[in-house]
This record gives sequence, C-alpha cells and structure tokens, in this order.
Amino acid sequence: MSRESSLNQNEKAIGIFDSGIGGLTVMRQVANRLPQESIIYFGDTARVPYGEKSQETILRYCIENTLFLMEQQVKMIVVACNTGAAYSTETLRQMFNIPILDVIEPGIARVAEVTKNRRIAILATKATIRSQVYQRGVSEKIPGAQLFPLACPLFVPLVEERLFNHPATELIVKEYLAPLKDKQVDTVLLGCTHYPLIQSIIQREMGSHVMIVDSATTCAARVAASLADTNQLSSQSSGGSRQFYASDDPERFRAMGEVFFGSSIECRSSVS
Amino acid sequence: MSRESSLNQNEKAIGIFDSGIGGLTVMRQVANRLPQESIIYFGDTARVPYGEKSQETILRYCIENTLFLMEQQVKMIVVACNTGAAYSTETLRQMFNIPILDVIEPGIARVAEVTKNRRIAILATKATIRSQVYQRGVSEKIPGAQLFPLACPLFVPLVEERLFNHPATELIVKEYLAPLKDKQVDTVLLGCTHYPLIQSIIQREMGSHVMIVDSATTCAARVAASLADTNQLSSQSSGGSRQFYASDDPERFRAMGEVFFGSSIECRSSVS
Repeated sequence: MSRESSLNQNEKAIGIFDSGIGGLTVMRQVANRLPQESIIYFGDTARVPYGEKSQETILRYCIENTLFLMEQQVKMIVVACNTGAAYSTETLRQMFNIPILDVIEPGIARVAEVTKNRRIAILATKATIRSQVYQRGVSEKIPGAQLFPLACPLFVPLVEERLFNHPATELIVKEYLAPLKDKQVDTVLLGCTHYPLIQSIIQREMGSHVMIVDSATTCAARVAASLADTNQLSSQSSGGSRQFYASDDPERFRAMGEVFFGSSIECRSSVS
Repeated sequence: MSRESSLNQNEKAIGIFDSGIGGLTVMRQVANRLPQESIIYFGDTARVPYGEKSQETILRYCIENTLFLMEQQVKMIVVACNTGAAYSTETLRQMFNIPILDVIEPGIARVAEVTKNRRIAILATKATIRSQVYQRGVSEKIPGAQLFPLACPLFVPLVEERLFNHPATELIVKEYLAPLKDKQVDTVLLGCTHYPLIQSIIQREMGSHVMIVDSATTCAARVAASLADTNQLSSQSSGGSRQFYASDDPERFRAMGEVFFGSSIECRSSVS
C-alpha cells in the first residue's frame, strides 16, 4: 500500500450501526476516546427493534446496514447492537473485507479481567439472553464461571421514557435484580446499549463492591486498540466529523438520540 | 348476486390485522360476540412496532397486510392497530373493494354516546396521540368537547411483561394519569389495544364514576352491526375457525398471544 493511499485509508470514518438509538452510547464513548476520528452512525429506525425478529431476518438487516456504511467509505464497522452482533458478526467477517468489531466481545474480555470469584450476572434484553451469546462467550473465556443471566425487558422503555431516577425504575430494577441477592456475584455485565443510562441505579442496587462492566466503554477501548494495532488511527489534529443516518424519521432519531449521545446531533435519512 | 355466491360470501372469514399481538384483544371480543364467524388474524411481527415509523412506511405496511388478508379470501378487513388505522383506513377504503373497519371510529362513537360533561381523556401510545386521530375524531363528533390526550408509552411494555397488577405498574399509571386529577373527565377512551389488560388499574385510579371506553369491545360491536347491516353474517350453527398468522416467529407470537386472546392459539408464518 502506498503512503498516500495509506493516509487516505486512515482518514476514513469509523462506521457504527445499531437497530436504533441505543448504539449511540457506544458512539459517545468512541467519540470521547478518539476525538480526532470521524464517525458515521447508522440507526435502522425503520426496522427497530431487532429483538423479537428471527435470526435470518436479523442477519439480513445487519448485512444491509453494513452495505450502507461500506458505501460511505468507512475503514471499520462496529456492530453496536447486541441482538445484531449475536447473529451477524461472524458472517459479516466472512462476507466483508474490512475489520468488523462488535459490542459483545470486548465486554466479555473485560469481565474476564475483573472478576475474582467468577460469579457473573449478565443483564440484557430477552432476545440477547435467549441468543446465549454472552453466556457462551463468558463460559469459553472464564472456565468454571458461574453465570446468572437475567432478561430485563422494561429497562429499554424506561430509559426511552427518560425515567433514569424514577421510583418506578428503582422498583423494577429491584425486582429484576432480586434473584441475584444471594448469588455473591462480583461482576455485572450490561449486555444492552441502553443500560449505561441507568447504571447508577443498578450499581446502588448491587452495592459498591460489585463491578459493573458496560459494553459501550469496553467497545470503545477495543476500537481504539484495533485501529492502533493496524496503524489505522487518524492523523488529524482537529476533531473528526460526526454523521448520523436513520432509515426512518431522522427528526425523532435526533430528539431521542441527543439523550444517548450526550450532545446535540443532526440526522439525515439513509433513504435517498 | 346469486343465492349460492351470496352464501359463500357469508361464510368467508373476517380478516383482522395489527402490527403485532395487541389486536388480539379486538379479535377476542369479536370472537366472543360472533362465535359462529371464522376469523383470520395477521400480526406483522417482522415489522412491529409501527408507532415510531413514518406515515408513508406505516401506510405501505397496512396495504401489504390488507393484501395478505385479501389473498385469504376474507369478507371484511378490521384494522386492529391504532397507529395503522390512523394513517391507512381512508386509503385502504379507496384502494380495496371490501368493507374496511378500524378500531378508532367505534371507540369515538361510543364516547359520544356515554359522555355527559364532554370532558374526555384519551390514553394512547405516543404515535397515536401524535397522529391526532382521536382528538380530531372526538372533536368532530362532540362539538365543544374538552379533550385531555395523554401518551402512556410504558403501558405496552408493562402489559407485555404481564405486570397487570404490579406496584410499578400502579406507580406509572398514577404518574401518567396525574394530570387528569383536577380535570373532571367523565370518560376515558383507551386508544391502544394493549390497554384493556390494565383497565382495572386505570379504573381504580380514575374512580368508579368515570366511564372507560375500550376500542376492542366497541370495535367488535361495530363488526357485528356492519355484518348484520349488509346481510353478511355467517349462517353456520357451529363455531367458526380461528386462524393466526405472523410475519415473524410464530412461536413467540403464540406464547404472548394467548395472554391477549385469552385462550390457546396456533400460529403459522405468513411467509411461504
């Protein structure tokens, strides 16, 4: 590869997709960690949520989302959708000649680093728990781990209602986490990109001795490491651009997305 | 029309569609009221929920759903999806030569019958409230009506978690309905097919003097009246058949759907 094309390659954007807005917590961490990188986010709001769809349908959607980002000339794809990643990462890696990262592997690797007693709770949507992707991944990485997977279907709608510190949210967190009370878990893995927004309630309920691993932060660290390893970091000194596309209703994406991304955004339709 | 084809026509099924399972509360009331009628239900679970999609997308989905039911040779279409009905009923009536009923009009007509002080609350999803379909309809039907529209986005996920009598559900019902406390409404219109399943909590919160109108019961009454008016009632003496189709994951549809339909069901995929 010539020096010039190598430079061009480095200045391409990182592509991130999710079924909707949740992956913006991942983009937020990537942007915080790598301010000089340009990032293009695609939220498949026309077909959100993926959770209740079949594996074949989810895979097809993820392939289409990847193709959309490839058309935007990205240098890396991040599957920032847990359900999507569970059913597509391997296939996407076989199909496309570009680095494909996801939100699942880095979280699992981080859990392996921090757990001492190997008693680990996994909180996620019904679909992600059902996929067994975290259970399988943690078991492979941490032999002898005791896993406590918990589906928490109301966390996403509560977050989307912005009830971050509401008594009803506390009640539901308490109820969902009750089965963990006597399990002596030392690590809780947040296997959904919405959950970092109620992390403080979860931490309070679990106690300060429990380590909470969120996949947004861990995924951002992995993106940074991967770009560094392959000498693909941007060499810009100024901040990179941030672009947002949604497959339906960019205005609604923008309004809700700002809560997740943590600052103001502009969103375009992916449908030309 | 000859006597024979008229008979055949009467023995065709009623077609009901919704974006997912909510419309099963409508089907349940139709089946209770018209046990001799055959009914075919289609839940568009591959694309649920419609609420956050654009008008154009919702209309397109409703046209496709209607075409699917027309292929099953139905004698009537019931749009049992509030969001779908808001954006499609008029167009469907222009496009298709078959009676098209929906869940919206009968509820509005019933409210007009029962309200005395014309102070009316409308509870629905964000999308339905945003569509203004109930506000416009009630205002046209009841001149001088005072309307109190309230979006209740958490009711659907709470119902789908089956938290029908949970303290968190009571807390959220209380919070959503708080703005109605001093409004002296005498009628509450449930503009979402999920809400009948928490009707008792809503009734308790509003007080027994308030009339609750649910669109499932009122829609079933309209279906019965319309078939009678057009001489299209089935003349079977035995019970009609009930068929269920879902555009994705029929097994999940079945498991959740039984809660909404109130008895056991079998579901087939609409994708051949």
